[in-house]
Amino acid sequence: MEILRSREAVRRWTAAHHAAGRTVALVPTMGFLHRAHTDLMRAAADHADVVIASIFVNPTQFGPDEDFDRYPRDESGDLEKAKAAGCAAAFLPSVAEMYPPNPSTRVTVATLSTHLCGASRPVFFDGICTIVAKLFHIVGCDVAVFGEKDFQQLAIIRRMVRDLDFPVRIVGHPLVREPDGLTMSSRNAYLSPAQRRDALTLSKALAEADARFRAGERDADTLRALLRGRLEAVGSIAVDYAELVDAETLQPVLGAIDRPTLAAVAVDLGGTRLIDNTVLGRDRPG
Amino acid sequence: MEILRSREAVRRWTAAHHAAGRTVALVPTMGFLHRAHTDLMRAAADHADVVIASIFVNPTQFGPDEDFDRYPRDESGDLEKAKAAGCAAAFLPSVAEMYPPNPSTRVTVATLSTHLCGASRPVFFDGICTIVAKLFHIVGCDVAVFGEKDFQQLAIIRRMVRDLDFPVRIVGHPLVREPDGLTMSSRNAYLSPAQRRDALTLSKALAEADARFRAGERDADTLRALLRGRLEAVGSIAVDYAELVDAETLQPVLGAIDRPTLAAVAVDLGGTRLIDNTVLGRDRPG
Repeated sequence: MEILRSREAVRRWTAAHHAAGRTVALVPTMGFLHRAHTDLMRAAADHADVVIASIFVNPTQFGPDEDFDRYPRDESGDLEKAKAAGCAAAFLPSVAEMYPPNPSTRVTVATLSTHLCGASRPVFFDGICTIVAKLFHIVGCDVAVFGEKDFQQLAIIRRMVRDLDFPVRIVGHPLVREPDGLTMSSRNAYLSPAQRRDALTLSKALAEADARFRAGERDADTLRALLRGRLEAVGSIAVDYAELVDAETLQPVLGAIDRPTLAAVAVDLGGTRLIDNTVLGRDRPG
Repeated sequence: MEILRSREAVRRWTAAHHAAGRTVALVPTMGFLHRAHTDLMRAAADHADVVIASIFVNPTQFGPDEDFDRYPRDESGDLEKAKAAGCAAAFLPSVAEMYPPNPSTRVTVATLSTHLCGASRPVFFDGICTIVAKLFHIVGCDVAVFGEKDFQQLAIIRRMVRDLDFPVRIVGHPLVREPDGLTMSSRNAYLSPAQRRDALTLSKALAEADARFRAGERDADTLRALLRGRLEAVGSIAVDYAELVDAETLQPVLGAIDRPTLAAVAVDLGGTRLIDNTVLGRDRPG
């Protein structure tokens, strides 16, 4: 696996593959890789001839009080995992390599960014859109693969690609769970054993809402109240949101559920942000 | 010359040239072509193997009270001129082809957009950045050529390309004037003979400021007052701005001029917006 640290080296790497007639898939990550990431890398190989993973903890998607500094990092472990998952290259730029002095350009997707994670994290999605636009331009990838754990991120990136005509095909990949139902996340490393147990409340609440939906419940407010109630019953959890939204537009579903609907939750658990989601009646959470 | 109306046709056109090892230069225009445009197209041929012009009056860079509807259009004349200027293709998309329903993504360059034209036209540069990003993605050009008449636009696009790592080289081309000094502009078509005479005030004022600078004047406020005074002396002219700004950052130069400085003016003349500029001591305006 080639280890690339400069934008120029990545451009040359892709140009060589394109010249040889090979397509390139990108899997953007913030590193501290786990099976959900390596699943994306393996899936990416179904969509292009060669796969490159980017590993970059992007400062512009963290707010001033968020966990940029303590976000977990493990470069040598990440490189082993990416290699084992079949990546032909990994791109590990420094912050200085990615951001020139006084960057002043940002990419904003307005309508999809106001709810859910966008409500409490105002710079988050602008930071993601901007870094993803940069990565697409640097790598020149034909395909990019994103996980559905970050469902809103995926919807926003699809919209950005459509609106700005990026020549990149976006592939979404299902959320990956631990055997007990917890969504895989690099931030799970922050959790104590007791917090780890409390964290199961998210997937359990979603599984209960999903079961009620499958049993015929179609009132969004009832299911929303159920989610919130289960989360608020746990003392260590502070709820950021517990929402039912249209799976396309991400606008809140009020009253009767008559279209594909995403149940999504985000909480603070002892200083760690955790998110989880499920499309009602489609996935099997928990 | 190939006439292309769909994004897909343009992608195929560029892919064929790239597959044959040829580089592609884009000259983005809003049509109603004149010699300043065709000069750009001829200059573009020095920077790439084939040249494509885009002709698209972009609605998102016009404010609600601006002249989108009456902006002059002449498709058959434009096609003849682009062909005579050596373009290998012209891209003439419809508004529906360029903008999907409910577009919600925009590209913003913050620091360079607040002064000069950005102050009175708040949506203008977001609209330009967004359409230029789309054109770069659709055309997949290696080079793009822009005129220095729109000096601020050129600076903003250079910044966008740097900040977002677009794989496109930006070439600026000097402003083109009529024999009497008037800056060439599609909007000159709006002017009556009397307005056409009054419009010369812009280039004459800039030429006078430039002559004073060459004679040793280095006080920005003196030259700024000179520009404004010459423009305000003409009854048909309403001044939007008469400014001296740093040619790199576009921030106002106050006091002594000790770096490359742009003198720039924008006025309303009987309902027509006219702009002109010169880098002091470098160009020979008027």
